Amino acid sequence: MPTRVAIVGASGYTGAELVRLLLGHPRVELAALYARRAAGSRLAEVFPQFAGRVDLPIEELDADDCARRADVAFLALPHGDSARAVAALHQRGMTVLDLSADFRLRDAGVYGRWYGSEAEPAHPHPELLPEAVYGLPELYRDRLAGARLVAVPGCYPTAALLAVAPLVRAGLVGADRLVVDAKSGVTGAGRSPSPIAHFPEAGEGVRPYKVVGGHRHTPEMEQELAALAGAEVRLLFTPHLLPMSRGILACVYAEPTGEHEPAAYRDAMVRAYEGEPFVTVLPPGRLPDTAHVRGSNRAHVAVAVCERSGRVLAMSAIDNLVKGASGQAIQCMNLARGLDETEGLDGVGLFP
Amino acid sequence: MPTRVAIVGASGYTGAELVRLLLGHPRVELAALYARRAAGSRLAEVFPQFAGRVDLPIEELDADDCARRADVAFLALPHGDSARAVAALHQRGMTVLDLSADFRLRDAGVYGRWYGSEAEPAHPHPELLPEAVYGLPELYRDRLAGARLVAVPGCYPTAALLAVAPLVRAGLVGADRLVVDAKSGVTGAGRSPSPIAHFPEAGEGVRPYKVVGGHRHTPEMEQELAALAGAEVRLLFTPHLLPMSRGILACVYAEPTGEHEPAAYRDAMVRAYEGEPFVTVLPPGRLPDTAHVRGSNRAHVAVAVCERSGRVLAMSAIDNLVKGASGQAIQCMNLARGLDETEGLDGVGLFP
Amino acid sequence: MPTRVAIVGASGYTGAELVRLLLGHPRVELAALYARRAAGSRLAEVFPQFAGRVDLPIEELDADDCARRADVAFLALPHGDSARAVAALHQRGMTVLDLSADFRLRDAGVYGRWYGSEAEPAHPHPELLPEAVYGLPELYRDRLAGARLVAVPGCYPTAALLAVAPLVRAGLVGADRLVVDAKSGVTGAGRSPSPIAHFPEAGEGVRPYKVVGGHRHTPEMEQELAALAGAEVRLLFTPHLLPMSRGILACVYAEPTGEHEPAAYRDAMVRAYEGEPFVTVLPPGRLPDTAHVRGSNRAHVAVAVCERSGRVLAMSAIDNLVKGASGQAIQCMNLARGLDETEGLDGVGLFP
Amino acid sequence: MPTRVAIVGASGYTGAELVRLLLGHPRVELAALYARRAAGSRLAEVFPQFAGRVDLPIEELDADDCARRADVAFLALPHGDSARAVAALHQRGMTVLDLSADFRLRDAGVYGRWYGSEAEPAHPHPELLPEAVYGLPELYRDRLAGARLVAVPGCYPTAALLAVAPLVRAGLVGADRLVVDAKSGVTGAGRSPSPIAHFPEAGEGVRPYKVVGGHRHTPEMEQELAALAGAEVRLLFTPHLLPMSRGILACVYAEPTGEHEPAAYRDAMVRAYEGEPFVTVLPPGRLPDTAHVRGSNRAHVAVAVCERSGRVLAMSAIDNLVKGASGQAIQCMNLARGLDETEGLDGVGLFP
Repeated sequence: MPTRVAIVGASGYTGAELVRLLLGHPRVELAALYARRAAGSRLAEVFPQFAGRVDLPIEELDADDCARRADVAFLALPHGDSARAVAALHQRGMTVLDLSADFRLRDAGVYGRWYGSEAEPAHPHPELLPEAVYGLPELYRDRLAGARLVAVPGCYPTAALLAVAPLVRAGLVGADRLVVDAKSGVTGAGRSPSPIAHFPEAGEGVRPYKVVGGHRHTPEMEQELAALAGAEVRLLFTPHLLPMSRGILACVYAEPTGEHEPAAYRDAMVRAYEGEPFVTVLPPGRLPDTAHVRGSNRAHVAVAVCERSGRVLAMSAIDNLVKGASGQAIQCMNLARGLDETEGLDGVGLFP
Repeated sequence: MPTRVAIVGASGYTGAELVRLLLGHPRVELAALYARRAAGSRLAEVFPQFAGRVDLPIEELDADDCARRADVAFLALPHGDSARAVAALHQRGMTVLDLSADFRLRDAGVYGRWYGSEAEPAHPHPELLPEAVYGLPELYRDRLAGARLVAVPGCYPTAALLAVAPLVRAGLVGADRLVVDAKSGVTGAGRSPSPIAHFPEAGEGVRPYKVVGGHRHTPEMEQELAALAGAEVRLLFTPHLLPMSRGILACVYAEPTGEHEPAAYRDAMVRAYEGEPFVTVLPPGRLPDTAHVRGSNRAHVAVAVCERSGRVLAMSAIDNLVKGASGQAIQCMNLARGLDETEGLDGVGLFP
Repeated sequence: MPTRVAIVGASGYTGAELVRLLLGHPRVELAALYARRAAGSRLAEVFPQFAGRVDLPIEELDADDCARRADVAFLALPHGDSARAVAALHQRGMTVLDLSADFRLRDAGVYGRWYGSEAEPAHPHPELLPEAVYGLPELYRDRLAGARLVAVPGCYPTAALLAVAPLVRAGLVGADRLVVDAKSGVTGAGRSPSPIAHFPEAGEGVRPYKVVGGHRHTPEMEQELAALAGAEVRLLFTPHLLPMSRGILACVYAEPTGEHEPAAYRDAMVRAYEGEPFVTVLPPGRLPDTAHVRGSNRAHVAVAVCERSGRVLAMSAIDNLVKGASGQAIQCMNLARGLDETEGLDGVGLFP
Repeated sequence: MPTRVAIVGASGYTGAELVRLLLGHPRVELAALYARRAAGSRLAEVFPQFAGRVDLPIEELDADDCARRADVAFLALPHGDSARAVAALHQRGMTVLDLSADFRLRDAGVYGRWYGSEAEPAHPHPELLPEAVYGLPELYRDRLAGARLVAVPGCYPTAALLAVAPLVRAGLVGADRLVVDAKSGVTGAGRSPSPIAHFPEAGEGVRPYKVVGGHRHTPEMEQELAALAGAEVRLLFTPHLLPMSRGILACVYAEPTGEHEPAAYRDAMVRAYEGEPFVTVLPPGRLPDTAHVRGSNRAHVAVAVCERSGRVLAMSAIDNLVKGASGQAIQCMNLARGLDETEGLDGVGLFP
């Protein structure tokens, strides 16, 4: 019997990507699509790439209806709204994959500082935080088995952690002196038209953003690196917007903890990712390129040691909508529901 | 038992696209990859999107070896070379899908005029022309069943014919007064670096090309339209190169044969494509967009009647590397080998 | 004494382009910038490319103030609003260059059909229509001298007319059987964020738009072609949106009026544009490319005769924001004010 | 009497950019264009953006002829070849602006290590090194006055130095712990077609390159930073290739030398660039964007202090072909010849 799946927030890019990937999942049945503003439309009206392939209505979310029709819910909602929907669906016994930030930070206080607003200063459902599993299978595979609430990581943290986590965990680089310089495609800004994503403004140019004040993915990276390092971590994170639709390239600059063999860094990566179905440590001399993972759940990672400066550069390329969001969410669902981890996710990237 | 498949010319974009699609085909085994210059490399060295997913060697073609290891061969070679490889593999009993132009034109004389060179003025294997089936399933599905030599159509003819064939066949528009204005992504120029495909030259601009003298896809369109119309056809074809990698949008301007109801044109399209697995006639008011078929084997078609001028505009959007090449070749193989026509091809387009 | 110039609607792309070009105009002084929503800001806050170069405040329009400070006003406003501002500034003795559609159509009835709304069904100032000169210098240079109200043509009509006007005027092609297939960059959609111009939707794809119902530039082209042909004209116009910021490529498909020498078409173009400062008839064999006119007021035009079909294809490439809007407006101002036509406009395109 | 200028290497992008800018220079006469492979063509055949605007022949370089016809030579040649041409023209009394790397490194040994080949292991003309002035006016304005041999800086060093030099010079950050993460458009790879610049490979993706082994601009940055810091410098430099044609964004990560006021960094920048005609320190809160300097000689710089990590991020955006090459060369010529530094360079960037 297939797993019956509902997608809440089906009218955004991550929602559409969930549909695209789940249509190719052999053990899943797309049971229901929900979205607020698009309710009443059919999927192919909102996303014409589905025309002639699937004909599903988009409805307004009703938690009882959702729980009746589906076993698993993917939530692609704004933070805050998401926590409330998570609570409602979790309470009704569903397995919930939350793509928002609401359950990524284990500390409700940190959440409040970064995501709180005047209208809603605190986390709406802190009581669920202890149950949430951070959905990076490469770090938390064991805990994901049977999980009923998964906090799917942010796109930038996924990219940065896949690049540098093996080096931090192996004690080769310090976690407290990291610089994360990451470059993202414009889908990271969502589907709502905005000046920053307006074609003539976003095209033919590159710019950093949210440097001052900080990007909300910062505490998420710090939390996970601190857990690996066993110490508090403060890092510098510079996100950039590039004239492309998909992809994140993360460059993490790190300091060695001592005099290590140059080969030690790549060896640690290779060991960390041995058997990992979706992480490829590139051969020596090869560097990651987001074009090579476009549309796929794969991460390409590499590490270079700068002989001149003695520093280490860990790099990764992912598709922000797949390994950085919807694909990773499905990978987590597979683990949570005891399915083969790679089901629905073995498509090769679309290059060029 | 799976169909064993070989790809000859695996180092170009259509070769890679064949691999990508065939990896998802449940009844196919990728048995061998051949390419001339890339021989000796492994696939993921030539196309890093396959790293960690498949590890296949690329070899130099040997017809005996190929026929021993595979039942079906896809050929993505330059014209001329392709005909020779077709002959060698066909003679050894293989089912051959030829993505070159060598067997698309039924008349060897026309072939010579458009493709002949001083070194090779005539078709190298005209004796095989009668057996070749033009691989546009929407027109030749019956003949493709059991075919052993399929001439996979050109990307532009696929787009133009899918747009206008139903109208010509229904006698609603004349075939002798057509203008085909088509816009293509840069992958149409292949993987070899060239001035026209150099990023700074191809980016942020649009240009027609091969207007004078004519593009070699012209006689192919004329041949198929003439077959539908039962009369000789001469058309004007303007290809354009656009700053995108994939996609062809074809606009075919036609003259009505008489006073038809405005709805008659779309009705003819709907009838023609009823039950077609890969052609979607868009709802009234919707227009095709190549972004919506990127990476998929689907064609989006539409027709508009201009009330002011009385003319008809038939439109289609395809991915030039999929429905315009590799996907269509697989669709033809499915038909030729008695498999389900859609196997390996039901992926949804990658949007955005 | 320099001509004092005001720009009304300085916060949009054509407004910024006027500032950019006028800063390089030796006989002009930028006297005032007006815009509604941006009023109170300074130019470099709204358009950072001016930072460190000019420091001008943006104010709310006051007609008296404008007329006091400037001799000439460029209006880059929405239609309707523009007509009212034109009337106010014209009445105060200013020379007005209107970049909106309000004074392009000589027939107020046609204007009402295409631009009227329920709230405002008719032209707000039809009494000014007779005085307005259609600002295409290549057709109306004489009338532009001393003009006090210039209707700067639309971007698509500029491109289409520059391509085909010489052939229609010379009687070589019929004006009543034209197809205009034009491809535009996304700046044509303005600076306000919208779904069609959202980077992930506009990138990596091409689509026609406003095919059904018709684009509002249609009657403008018909009006000018009818004037050249001396007969009513109905044409089919297909605009497209391409993944680039600037540029329009127009392909105009025409029927010869008889058996003309193949060379006759290009000869007519060469004669028509002899001495024209901003129109280049490309050498035989060369085709226009919007990348080659980016940022410049130049149009590249060419014509091809299709030997197979007997049809004629007239082509042009312009920058939609320069020759298609702001540059042409300045060219008209130069003529209207008795300045050298090319002043401020002799910059070479930015390629690549 | 105008300065007579020759351009050697006129068929590449920096050559064309020199022509574009010099055509707008009021005190310069374009006297001769030279190029090897394009010799015998006219400029507009090689670069159609000049069609109808200038009609200059491209010739094969003859040093005597060049010195007879021009006072100043701009050299846009490959390294090695350039040094030989520099020597020939310098000896004939010309003022030479060399855009190659040949005279940027003061130490011939360092040059040999980074640029030497088996065929040519050492600098061809080390005797000229002492005379060469490093052509970054913001650092060497005084020495450029009257200079007869100017080594125009590399594009990446220009961007990185403009970002971080004021902070190093003011002693606010250390020069020995710098990370330079820079993002470049594809024109940086030149006009010759190559796999890395092939549109389908370069589009819709971002990738670092030359991380292993190091980019040749590294020693140039180290040399200049060492001069400012008065100590040896080793830095980590990661160049990236982005899907855009023009622009470099440099992010320089630095360590404070002590506890400085957060405002001290921007203050140092403001002081350093007070009166600089081409460097704009952005207002607090604003970040550089290469789109805002496209086509202009301007650099936008900013600095941010990360409160979490205590690190400093200095940023700059330039157009790699203008401030990063041809524009800067003209700025140097103006200084070397006693002209107004900004002549020919006051154009505003083309945005969008």
